[in-house]
Amino acid sequence: MEKSDNNPEFITTHDSALPVSGIRLAATSTNTRYKERDDLALLEINADATIAAVFTQNRFCAAPVKVAKEHLEHHSPRYLVVNAGNANAGTGTNGEQAASTVCQAVAQAADVEPQHVLPFSTGVIGEQLNADAIVSQVPELFHNLRADAWPDMAAAILTTDTSEKISSITVRGKSAKFVVTGIAKGSGMIKPNMATMLAYIATDAAISRAALEQILSESMAASFNRITVDGDTSTNDACVLIATGTADGSEVTDPADADFAVLKDGVAHVAADLARAIVQDGEGATKFVTINVHGGESKEACTSVAYTVAESPLVKTALFASDPNWGRILAAVGRAPGTSFDIAQVSIWIGAERIIANGEPARDYVEARAAEIMAKNEIVITIEIGEGAHTDTVWTCDFSYDYVRINAEYRS
Amino acid sequence: MEKSDNNPEFITTHDSALPVSGIRLAATSTNTRYKERDDLALLEINADATIAAVFTQNRFCAAPVKVAKEHLEHHSPRYLVVNAGNANAGTGTNGEQAASTVCQAVAQAADVEPQHVLPFSTGVIGEQLNADAIVSQVPELFHNLRADAWPDMAAAILTTDTSEKISSITVRGKSAKFVVTGIAKGSGMIKPNMATMLAYIATDAAISRAALEQILSESMAASFNRITVDGDTSTNDACVLIATGTADGSEVTDPADADFAVLKDGVAHVAADLARAIVQDGEGATKFVTINVHGGESKEACTSVAYTVAESPLVKTALFASDPNWGRILAAVGRAPGTSFDIAQVSIWIGAERIIANGEPARDYVEARAAEIMAKNEIVITIEIGEGAHTDTVWTCDFSYDYVRINAEYRS
Repeated sequence: MEKSDNNPEFITTHDSALPVSGIRLAATSTNTRYKERDDLALLEINADATIAAVFTQNRFCAAPVKVAKEHLEHHSPRYLVVNAGNANAGTGTNGEQAASTVCQAVAQAADVEPQHVLPFSTGVIGEQLNADAIVSQVPELFHNLRADAWPDMAAAILTTDTSEKISSITVRGKSAKFVVTGIAKGSGMIKPNMATMLAYIATDAAISRAALEQILSESMAASFNRITVDGDTSTNDACVLIATGTADGSEVTDPADADFAVLKDGVAHVAADLARAIVQDGEGATKFVTINVHGGESKEACTSVAYTVAESPLVKTALFASDPNWGRILAAVGRAPGTSFDIAQVSIWIGAERIIANGEPARDYVEARAAEIMAKNEIVITIEIGEGAHTDTVWTCDFSYDYVRINAEYRS
Repeated sequence: MEKSDNNPEFITTHDSALPVSGIRLAATSTNTRYKERDDLALLEINADATIAAVFTQNRFCAAPVKVAKEHLEHHSPRYLVVNAGNANAGTGTNGEQAASTVCQAVAQAADVEPQHVLPFSTGVIGEQLNADAIVSQVPELFHNLRADAWPDMAAAILTTDTSEKISSITVRGKSAKFVVTGIAKGSGMIKPNMATMLAYIATDAAISRAALEQILSESMAASFNRITVDGDTSTNDACVLIATGTADGSEVTDPADADFAVLKDGVAHVAADLARAIVQDGEGATKFVTINVHGGESKEACTSVAYTVAESPLVKTALFASDPNWGRILAAVGRAPGTSFDIAQVSIWIGAERIIANGEPARDYVEARAAEIMAKNEIVITIEIGEGAHTDTVWTCDFSYDYVRINAEYRS
C-alpha cells in the first residue's frame, strides 16, 4: 500500500484493506491466458448502495465499456465482474455478445437482472474473449465471496503489473467514522482520461448519487487524471466509486455538508495513493517522478508543460540513466503546446537544485548535486513559468530497457 | 542518398552530390568532443545569392539560432558555420557571446561583416561552447573550401546519426536545367516544427526572396514537418535554402511562372529525401514506417491521427517486435486529439492487409499475412477515418532497445 505524504489529521491510513460493510469480493482462475494465478474477480454490492462510474474517453472503447455504460443508464449495479488477460477490445459485436453472456451468467447465479451486472476486462486488445471459460467459473466466484477479499481481487485483476495496488483509510466525519478502501490495476497504456485502467473504491458512508459523482469527478482530476506512463490512453479505463450507506450518519447530499468535504478528501486520498502506485509500477519503471508546474496563467497551461516534460522520451531516458541532462527538460518545456509564457521568466529545479533561473543557466548550479538527486528513486522536477498563479502536478516514471522488453517481447 | 518513390519525369536523381555553382564547402576537426572525425563545417555562398531560412519553434531556442535570426534581419548571409557535438543551447548570454565570436572569426578571415555569417550548432544541450577551439580551425576551413565538398560537410555535421544524408537532383525548367543539392543531419530529438535539426539545400536557379520563402515553406510542410522519431522538438532546428542564381534563365519571382513549380517540386523532392533519411537513421530505428491517413474533414484531423499513432510508445515497440498488435494502433487512433470522426466509419490497413473495416475487426483479416508485412523493414499503415476528403502522411520509425541505450548511456 502506498502512503500519502499529505496525510490530514482526520485520515487514518491502514496497512491492510479494511472491509467496507455492504461489499463482498471473490477471485478465481479461468486457467486461460495466465496459469497458476487468479484472473477473474467478482465484487458484490448491497442493494441500497449508490454508485458513480467514469470510463475511458478513447473513442475505440472496449465491448465491456459499452455494455457497462448501457447497464448503468437505468439500473444500479449489484455485481462487478472483472477478467484479466483479455481486454475484449476491438472485438466488434462478438465482443459485446461475450460481455453480455458473462453478465447473464452472473445475474442468473445471483437472481438479479443482467443489467445489474457491469463487466470489465483488461489485457490484450484485439482477441475474442473466451466467455465460456469465465461462465464456468461463476459458481466458484459466488462460493468465494468474502468481505475481506479486497487483496484477492486486487491480485486477480493485474496484467503486466508487478504488485497489487490497495489503499485503505478511515476518515472521521462529524457524526461517524467512515471507511474508504480502493484497489486498482494499471502499468502500461497509462494516460487516463477520466479514469485509470481499472479502479474500484468503496466507502460505507451514505452519499447521494449527485454528491458521489461530484466526489468522483474531483478526486479523479487530482489523481488518475494526473498520471502518465507512456501517454497511451487505454480502451478499457474505468473507475467505480461505491457508497454502501451501511455506516452510521445521515446521507450526504450537499457539498456544503461538513461530511462531504471529509469524504471527498478521503476518496481523493485513496485515489491519489492508487494513482501513484500505478506510476511506481509503470512498465519497466525504475523512478517515480513528480513534475510540479507553478506560475501558469491557467491550470491548462501548467498541465500542458507538465505532460510535455513527463512524456518526452528523451527526458524519460535521461531519468532512467540518472543523468541530470537538464537540457532535455528545457527543450520539452520550450515546446509545450497551448502556452504563451516568456522564457525569460522560466526557472527550473531538480529537487532543490536550481538549474535554470529566469531563462538562463543558474549561476549556483552544481552538476554533482543534481546528479546526487537524479540517482534517487523518487525525483521532483519543479518548473516556474512566471506568468500567473495557477499550478498543476503530474506523476510519471522513467523509460527503461524493460519498457521496450515488456512491450516488444510480450503481447500486452 | 535516399531515392523518392515519386520521381516525376522532369527530375533526374544522382548517386552523388552535384556541386551547385556559387557554393563552396569545407570541413575539419576541432578535436574536442569527437575524436578522429570532422566536426566543423563551413558553407560559402556567392554574393548574389538569395537565401530563405526557417528555425525551430521551440521557445527555448539555442544561442546560434538567436544570433542567426538577428544576422538575417538586415544582411544576406555569405557564410554558414556549423559545429557538431555541442548545441550551444541553454547556455545563456555566454552562449550567445560564443556564437558571435565564431561569426567574427569567420568574418575576419573572409573580410565580410560578422552579420554575413550565420552560426549553427548541434549536439549536447546545456554545455558551454568552446569557441576558441572553433576559431583556431577557421583558417583550415578556408583552406579546405571546395565546390565538391558536400559529402565532407554532410559527414562533419552528424551527431548520433549513423550515416550522411545527401540528396541531389537535376530539374528541367522551361529554359534551363537546374541543380538542387541538399544535406541534413538528425537522428534523435526529431519532431521538427518548421525545420529539422539541420538542413542545407542549394540550387543554382535565380529565385527572388519571396518566391524562395514560399518554396521553402511549402517544401517543409511535406517533408521535415511530417516526420517524428521521438516527438521531441529540438532547440536547434534550422533549414536554409539557397538560390545562387548562377544557372541560365531569368529570375523566378512569380508562383505562376512555370519554373516556380519545377523548382518547388525539385526542392520538395530533395527535402523529402532528406526527411526520410533522417527517420531511417532515427536513433535505434530498425523500421521505416509511413502512416497515411485518409478521409479527414480537415488536414489537421489527419495530421493529429497520424502523429498520435506515430508517437505512441506502444505502437512503436510493437513495430520493433514485428508484432501485428493492431489493437495498439486502434487505441492510438481512438485517442487522437482534436478529431470528431465516427468509429463506425474507421478502417485500418497494415500494408494491404485490412485489420479494421468500418470500426469492426475485418472478417478477412489473416494474422499470418499481417505478421509477414510487419517483418519487413518498411511498413505502411493506412487509416481511413471516413468523414471527408483530406489526407496526410507522416513518416516515423520504431522504438528499440537501442533508442534507450543511445539516450541513456550517451549524453546527446
